[in-house]
Amino acid sequence: MKFEVNILGCSAATCTLKRNTTSQLLNIHDKLFLIDCGEGTQIQLRKFKFKFQRISNIFISHLHGDHYLGLFGLMSSMHLLGRTKILHIYGPPELKGLIDLNIKVSQSYLRYKYEFHPTQAENSELIYEDSTILIHSLPLNHRIPTTGFVFVEKLKKNRIIKTKIDEYKLGVEEMLHLKNGNDVFREGEKTIYSKNCTLAPFPPRKFVFMSDTAPLTEGLELIENADLLYHESTFLNDQIDRAKHTFHSTAEQAALVAKNGNVNRLCLGHFSNRYKELSSFLDEARPHFKNCILASDGLNIRI
Amino acid sequence: MKFEVNILGCSAATCTLKRNTTSQLLNIHDKLFLIDCGEGTQIQLRKFKFKFQRISNIFISHLHGDHYLGLFGLMSSMHLLGRTKILHIYGPPELKGLIDLNIKVSQSYLRYKYEFHPTQAENSELIYEDSTILIHSLPLNHRIPTTGFVFVEKLKKNRIIKTKIDEYKLGVEEMLHLKNGNDVFREGEKTIYSKNCTLAPFPPRKFVFMSDTAPLTEGLELIENADLLYHESTFLNDQIDRAKHTFHSTAEQAALVAKNGNVNRLCLGHFSNRYKELSSFLDEARPHFKNCILASDGLNIRI
Repeated sequence: MKFEVNILGCSAATCTLKRNTTSQLLNIHDKLFLIDCGEGTQIQLRKFKFKFQRISNIFISHLHGDHYLGLFGLMSSMHLLGRTKILHIYGPPELKGLIDLNIKVSQSYLRYKYEFHPTQAENSELIYEDSTILIHSLPLNHRIPTTGFVFVEKLKKNRIIKTKIDEYKLGVEEMLHLKNGNDVFREGEKTIYSKNCTLAPFPPRKFVFMSDTAPLTEGLELIENADLLYHESTFLNDQIDRAKHTFHSTAEQAALVAKNGNVNRLCLGHFSNRYKELSSFLDEARPHFKNCILASDGLNIRI
Repeated sequence: MKFEVNILGCSAATCTLKRNTTSQLLNIHDKLFLIDCGEGTQIQLRKFKFKFQRISNIFISHLHGDHYLGLFGLMSSMHLLGRTKILHIYGPPELKGLIDLNIKVSQSYLRYKYEFHPTQAENSELIYEDSTILIHSLPLNHRIPTTGFVFVEKLKKNRIIKTKIDEYKLGVEEMLHLKNGNDVFREGEKTIYSKNCTLAPFPPRKFVFMSDTAPLTEGLELIENADLLYHESTFLNDQIDRAKHTFHSTAEQAALVAKNGNVNRLCLGHFSNRYKELSSFLDEARPHFKNCILASDGLNIRI
């Protein structure tokens, strides 16, 4: 089952010709989730050949332009290209007013319904759940109310050991029974025990998005054991005062969050456009957290 | 003196990978004027290497997203990159509310002042004037209030015939006098007549922007003798009913406006993304108006 993060933009504040502003497309079990939607996100979706009508849930971290200004154009294109399927949008309450004002001034309407789910940055909440995925908001520490997002699979069923299917000539119903941890009783035969036929489920995979934020020192239990943490590193330590002043993080600070949060892998992003060459971000982060990569537009990360 | 139109985007409604949504950058006498600002305009400005801080006047035709959604990101980038110079924005009154709401939700401010000049689509108005240029609005016929824009140079002074400078040993003051149509009287010498030393001024150059609109049948005196008319041709005649219904034009209709308006050159643009190959637009327009070209992103047209 797929669990992939696609970086559509990883520039801070203003785009460059190499880096668009923030947006990521997650493919989890073939469902597409969009996180943030900086200006030009619909162009990036086209460029990297994603079918944006398949997106049904969009999560906006906060209302700085580089994280939401592409939303209205994307919504408009979804309408113009014939969407009828409902779209769910999660974000700060004021976002709804912005969406509705953009629709109003165009004296237009949307062919599809959109449902708005306001977020708040006081405490973590479960904001999305389906049969296989849970999504929690994650309060961040930025100049304005901002949330990260924690995507985690639900605990899966036990896995059938393939050789047991032939050995016991297991039927579909029986396999389901065993995967659920129940034993199978056949009339006049020996009991087939679940524990003998199955392996423990794969551990649920987890992705955490944290941008924009000053380094968190509390609440890190929410990110623990994440397979991948995307953490902003707008600056290097040469700009640590500016990072503090603007409620952003340096590469070193991001690495320490990854370390203290006990995550497995770190992806740095949201780079200030003052940095043309990014290898220094790795140089600064890796002494503290080795399993670290740099975001780039178009990067696909499989979890 | 420069008079150039740079096409930054010429796609209708939704962008494609080849064509961004509407925006044009005019360089008139080294002043930069931006017309419309679809999503991604700041990316196009970077791509084609224009210094967007040199833009001091932005003209928005109407409030469909493909004509204004890039404005907020551009304004934000101007701020973040240190602009202090005033920015003038001309557009429908509701645009100001949108700009201010975007600034408000970001709990931000602009380092520079912006002045908003509301337009109306009832009748043509002089909306900008400096020592060399006049800009008029031009009411169009679209689903919502929409204006085109007429850029015209002021009538220039007579031109000194270069050989006369030596012949009469003309001083700077005297040349200015002659250029203004006055004769020069030197004590004890023959009068030097302006008509003998100067040629008539070059005719003022004129550019007209008309997008989006159904074909106009009245008010064409405003576009008369334009050196260049940019006219939308969202559709070909195969979609003439759709063009009528959506208050757009076909290539043939645009050509007839150019012909009836007695302009010199026509540039077709605002192409629907249903058309992958655009030569049919020329085939349809040229029988009615020969001097016709197609817009493309990055096209520079010198007038």
